[in-house]
Amino acid sequence: MNLLVSRDVQPENSVVRVGDVAFGDGGFVVMAGPCSVENEEQLMACAEVIADCGGQLLRGGAFKPRTSPYEFQGLGEPGLKLLELARERYGLGIVTEVVTEADVDLVANYADLMQVGARNMQNFALLKALGRCGKPVLLKRGPSATLKEWLMAAEYVLANGNPDVVLCERGIRSFDSHTRNVCDITAVPAMKEMTHLPVILDPSHATGRRSLVAPLARAAVAVGADGLLVECHPNPDAALSDGAQSLDLTQFRQLMMTLPCRILKA
Amino acid sequence: MNLLVSRDVQPENSVVRVGDVAFGDGGFVVMAGPCSVENEEQLMACAEVIADCGGQLLRGGAFKPRTSPYEFQGLGEPGLKLLELARERYGLGIVTEVVTEADVDLVANYADLMQVGARNMQNFALLKALGRCGKPVLLKRGPSATLKEWLMAAEYVLANGNPDVVLCERGIRSFDSHTRNVCDITAVPAMKEMTHLPVILDPSHATGRRSLVAPLARAAVAVGADGLLVECHPNPDAALSDGAQSLDLTQFRQLMMTLPCRILKA
Amino acid sequence: MNLLVSRDVQPENSVVRVGDVAFGDGGFVVMAGPCSVENEEQLMACAEVIADCGGQLLRGGAFKPRTSPYEFQGLGEPGLKLLELARERYGLGIVTEVVTEADVDLVANYADLMQVGARNMQNFALLKALGRCGKPVLLKRGPSATLKEWLMAAEYVLANGNPDVVLCERGIRSFDSHTRNVCDITAVPAMKEMTHLPVILDPSHATGRRSLVAPLARAAVAVGADGLLVECHPNPDAALSDGAQSLDLTQFRQLMMTLPCRILKA
Amino acid sequence: MNLLVSRDVQPENSVVRVGDVAFGDGGFVVMAGPCSVENEEQLMACAEVIADCGGQLLRGGAFKPRTSPYEFQGLGEPGLKLLELARERYGLGIVTEVVTEADVDLVANYADLMQVGARNMQNFALLKALGRCGKPVLLKRGPSATLKEWLMAAEYVLANGNPDVVLCERGIRSFDSHTRNVCDITAVPAMKEMTHLPVILDPSHATGRRSLVAPLARAAVAVGADGLLVECHPNPDAALSDGAQSLDLTQFRQLMMTLPCRILKA
Repeated sequence: MNLLVSRDVQPENSVVRVGDVAFGDGGFVVMAGPCSVENEEQLMACAEVIADCGGQLLRGGAFKPRTSPYEFQGLGEPGLKLLELARERYGLGIVTEVVTEADVDLVANYADLMQVGARNMQNFALLKALGRCGKPVLLKRGPSATLKEWLMAAEYVLANGNPDVVLCERGIRSFDSHTRNVCDITAVPAMKEMTHLPVILDPSHATGRRSLVAPLARAAVAVGADGLLVECHPNPDAALSDGAQSLDLTQFRQLMMTLPCRILKA
Repeated sequence: MNLLVSRDVQPENSVVRVGDVAFGDGGFVVMAGPCSVENEEQLMACAEVIADCGGQLLRGGAFKPRTSPYEFQGLGEPGLKLLELARERYGLGIVTEVVTEADVDLVANYADLMQVGARNMQNFALLKALGRCGKPVLLKRGPSATLKEWLMAAEYVLANGNPDVVLCERGIRSFDSHTRNVCDITAVPAMKEMTHLPVILDPSHATGRRSLVAPLARAAVAVGADGLLVECHPNPDAALSDGAQSLDLTQFRQLMMTLPCRILKA
Repeated sequence: MNLLVSRDVQPENSVVRVGDVAFGDGGFVVMAGPCSVENEEQLMACAEVIADCGGQLLRGGAFKPRTSPYEFQGLGEPGLKLLELARERYGLGIVTEVVTEADVDLVANYADLMQVGARNMQNFALLKALGRCGKPVLLKRGPSATLKEWLMAAEYVLANGNPDVVLCERGIRSFDSHTRNVCDITAVPAMKEMTHLPVILDPSHATGRRSLVAPLARAAVAVGADGLLVECHPNPDAALSDGAQSLDLTQFRQLMMTLPCRILKA
Repeated sequence: MNLLVSRDVQPENSVVRVGDVAFGDGGFVVMAGPCSVENEEQLMACAEVIADCGGQLLRGGAFKPRTSPYEFQGLGEPGLKLLELARERYGLGIVTEVVTEADVDLVANYADLMQVGARNMQNFALLKALGRCGKPVLLKRGPSATLKEWLMAAEYVLANGNPDVVLCERGIRSFDSHTRNVCDITAVPAMKEMTHLPVILDPSHATGRRSLVAPLARAAVAVGADGLLVECHPNPDAALSDGAQSLDLTQFRQLMMTLPCRILKA
């Protein structure tokens, strides 16, 4: 493939920098936070623990793509302002989702890393706008996207002028409903053979079940992922979205203690 | 389900009118045309045959979502103008795809039926904008969408003020690459049990192979679909997109002759 | 492919004869009956209606492959004797499943058509034994078998000396649990392009839901299938297996009245 | 679930012993060898390296289930005799596949661990016979089996008298052909929540590609698997089956050096 994303074109790893955090330099970046930004108290509780445990970026959704129009759709710009406040207080860069090209400029005013959700992996108008947004992009794999389609989606961003794309495996659709999705963990090393871009894993969406997040996070390290995107919440049972897959803050702290990467990075 | 799309809320079939064409009244609507509008000659050749055979609406893409950024992306507004010209000449209403909320007003100026492609089934910003566009909507099922997710996507349009949605099954992702997708034909009667909205079938995308289009089109009649969306082209082997699944105009004419619906409608 | 099953080797359709019933000669064969043979009363009630409506073969399981070891496993040889009795009384040939090579001779003593279930499509020891059994074989597609794997499974039977194989599409595994399986209806014409063997459809397993059986049965006619395998039961709600997908005898009678094949065969 | 396989019935881990090798005691067992036993030289070359590197069991197929009847089907009993010879020379217990109940006694005369292949996971006659065979069983997950179906298949063995079952995840069918299967790595911890039986991983079949075997093997350790089943061959490019996914003996040695389990076991 003669693509911008291809190792044929660039053999060495791309290093994508988000502030002083680097993806793809051999380190392992942990991004964590709630699925949705709900209120100041919830977000700050998360941010404090994440910063304290060595998490590097804070995730939180202000614009939420939801299957039903009657589900909580996120706080919108007030949610972005809370993320900004958390950055100021705790020194964590912000990862947050943008769901439509019309919001790209608004979200880019607040975010350090612009997240494209799985449902939007082939929202080409959004990808083109992100190519011109001036911020790095976190591109989730679509739930039934092949590796080639995922690479091509990244190519849309690069071809429109933005070389800073981090890829995120988050599980694919399958016949077994035991977990929310099936984590295609082999996609991490398979993608890294084909592309120079960093590849991370989201063990929360890949499993949908709290108890499986930590084993899968450790597996991400084992297969050579460049980082994690993981959901946590001060009170998962009361979360407005994705409670079943969110770690509570004690569980998150335990996860961080057991990640072998922490030893490797020392 | 207490949804606007549900038969619990409205037991009788919705009839969606596109000009003088009706979906859901017991008839069978054939929409046909090229995957992409390429030029005047190509489009008029299709439109002439479609009108002559009893096809009711002309499809053609001016904004094309393509897996690769380097593939033909459609003619844009000049393509819409060609569709308008075909409508004037042949009296066929126009079905064409809109790929982003930013284009909704532009496309609505030309289209009679606004198509949402499979990749955009959960582009909620687009769905909300279509709820307010004043034109009926053709909503394709996503390649890995469950029936509930598809219904919920339609609910976004209805909840934003537009009751005129036609659903289109076009095949789902599966493990077998023998056909481009696997047509979930049972989805047609299964959806019609749950919703009052019309449901049609796209045998071209569902198979990806010309020789399988006609049998599947006849099956659509057999399961009670309200119509077809089918690709045809004066010279499929030279098509800029989807040639392998496009009927040539003679094959399209033959298909129209053998559809049992034509007898039923007489 | 230079296979015995291939149209390259034999361009014309194979006609598989089961007594005086022929598959593949352009007619449409209906095989019906209960999932499991439960008792004489149940089986004879089915057989009487099937014979009366023009069904040609009686299906019924005596050896049942069941997901759980604690579910009803079939009556065994006494079930085969009941099938024999029904054949004597109603003149219907018998289709019944054989689940292991060790039972091939026993089942062949009773059956007119030896059924291989979906789970056993690649039970190669069984396929080889059926190649030498002297009876025609009904080979169901495995729930995640590609068309090529299915053809190769048939090739095992032919290569071991038995040219009389009828293929049966019965739905494949997918991500959507709305139906028990997803019927890959396009597999019927796609297989018939590649092989000269007859291809039929099982709308009961393909849907798992009674209300969807009749539409799918009609679609089978529309795509050119050579017949149907359909489950019926005098009292589906009390069935020992597969009640939810079994037609009651009135519904079966109605299905037979509306199959367009009956007109075509006249 | 009130099943013999369930943790509700037996909360503590089962330890399955194969000679002096134990699965489920917190250790990590490596089983390796060629896909098919081809000849003495090939098998002994593998066995020597496996024993030298700390591998605990030797795998090798003598009865091979193959998609095509014209592919190499294994050496049969002469292959079993070669495995026996390798056991004598190198002290490695033998894992080999049995494909039909008719062969259970024969294979049990040679094998220390009786393998059930993915295609036979629901070959219930075989499972019942293995319940009475007196040897432990390695039960691979079917390519489209749910976790519940897999548990139920194991239950067939236990319910027929044999408590010694080791489960093996080997990848499932999916839409992406980039790898041979998609490894459902989360199945390992998810199964271990539900059952007390040991669970191992087969990274060779799960990927189908040599370069992905080592990362996936390390991930198996990370998610808490009880061991590995891995294919190696002195000359993979000349292998009669599965060459593309077989490690050569140098690669196998490297894998063994880098498995973190070796450190943990010390």
